Amino acid sequence: MAGIQALTFDVFGTVVDWRGSVAREAEALLAPKGHALDWGGFADGWRRRYVPAMGRVSRGERPFVILDALHRENLVDLLAEQGIGDLTENEIDQLNLAWHRLDPWPDVLEGLARLKRRFILATLSNGNVRLMVDMARRAGLPWDAILGAEVARAYKPQPEAYDSAARMLALRPAECLMVAAHPTDLAAAAERGFRTAYVARPLEYGPDRQARRPEPGTFDFQVESFIELADALET
Amino acid sequence: MAGIQALTFDVFGTVVDWRGSVAREAEALLAPKGHALDWGGFADGWRRRYVPAMGRVSRGERPFVILDALHRENLVDLLAEQGIGDLTENEIDQLNLAWHRLDPWPDVLEGLARLKRRFILATLSNGNVRLMVDMARRAGLPWDAILGAEVARAYKPQPEAYDSAARMLALRPAECLMVAAHPTDLAAAAERGFRTAYVARPLEYGPDRQARRPEPGTFDFQVESFIELADALET
Repeated sequence: MAGIQALTFDVFGTVVDWRGSVAREAEALLAPKGHALDWGGFADGWRRRYVPAMGRVSRGERPFVILDALHRENLVDLLAEQGIGDLTENEIDQLNLAWHRLDPWPDVLEGLARLKRRFILATLSNGNVRLMVDMARRAGLPWDAILGAEVARAYKPQPEAYDSAARMLALRPAECLMVAAHPTDLAAAAERGFRTAYVARPLEYGPDRQARRPEPGTFDFQVESFIELADALET
Repeated sequence: MAGIQALTFDVFGTVVDWRGSVAREAEALLAPKGHALDWGGFADGWRRRYVPAMGRVSRGERPFVILDALHRENLVDLLAEQGIGDLTENEIDQLNLAWHRLDPWPDVLEGLARLKRRFILATLSNGNVRLMVDMARRAGLPWDAILGAEVARAYKPQPEAYDSAARMLALRPAECLMVAAHPTDLAAAAERGFRTAYVARPLEYGPDRQARRPEPGTFDFQVESFIELADALET
């Protein structure tokens, strides 16, 4: 793995616990208004609308719009499904910002601090720039650059999302290590020439749904945390 | 000035001392090969080629290329003018990276640390992403996002350079404060609706050439350092 100069990170699920954080934010806004929901299920319902919404952009059925815009459309749809009709437009906007306030997994800050000493650290997320900036400022994520969908004007797993990140880092793809908890993201990155690191996040979908781990050897690295990734890259 | 949420920074001259740093880097590479030059003058000669080279891109006479590419073309031209013909392609590449190793002015780190507590800090420079990343990592510049020419695919003072920065920060232009030592940059930003802060950098062009200061009241703020800017924005 000599020659790796930058680590590019998937963020939702890999760096931050979207499900737990969105559940917390939804409860904080909706419970005082008398709504009693399965908050984890609410987060799941929001997330479930994410891939189809991006697909419509990626297939060219609509022009590129940032993830904040897709999230808001999906939230309106979810609220209707859940029978929640008493939110003002401003309250919907506020709830939509839940995705800007996601907490990192416990190993992330220590791992990133170690990785930053030797490598450029960039987001390669489908989240838009302001979402990534707000999340990073709140959580203390030490990104060197915010790359990904908005800058590329293409959502992962489209090739341009990966290609533009390598290009803006002035690196060959093989000098970039894609870090993600999702095999499809890693496979798409590998297709564009990136090295790949799978990080297991067994709680991403909550305590009751386990992601199946890839076969050993599928990716260049397979680790349980960012600390383990730092260990692996320092040897 | 209520409502300012992000500070967008010109970098060359405003944040870093390009002339002193490029002179140092050129001397470090060329003096051991027996070249004796006015190193500040060498930096000036390189910089002098910068605005015309960008102009050819901005006028559409050639497709967008990043600043690293323009810098390298300009360096080849400058070396020929100076009669320096003994550099390998790799040595020219190394010297071209001088612009990635510029030192901040003495007030910058303290000022940015204070400003970062309350505001999003983004570059809005004509430098490309990797140049900004290398500079920030070396100098410890705490940017929240690297915006500007490469991301916008337009060089300042073209409107799209400013417009794209505000758009990616999800802010109205009036919520962005452009910080620069150059009145033309600030005037172009104001034209797009940004607030403006002029920071005097009397040594930018060396000890013998003083930039004329704008008339008081030309810009929203006029300060002598980033520390003074932090003072002004905290009141």
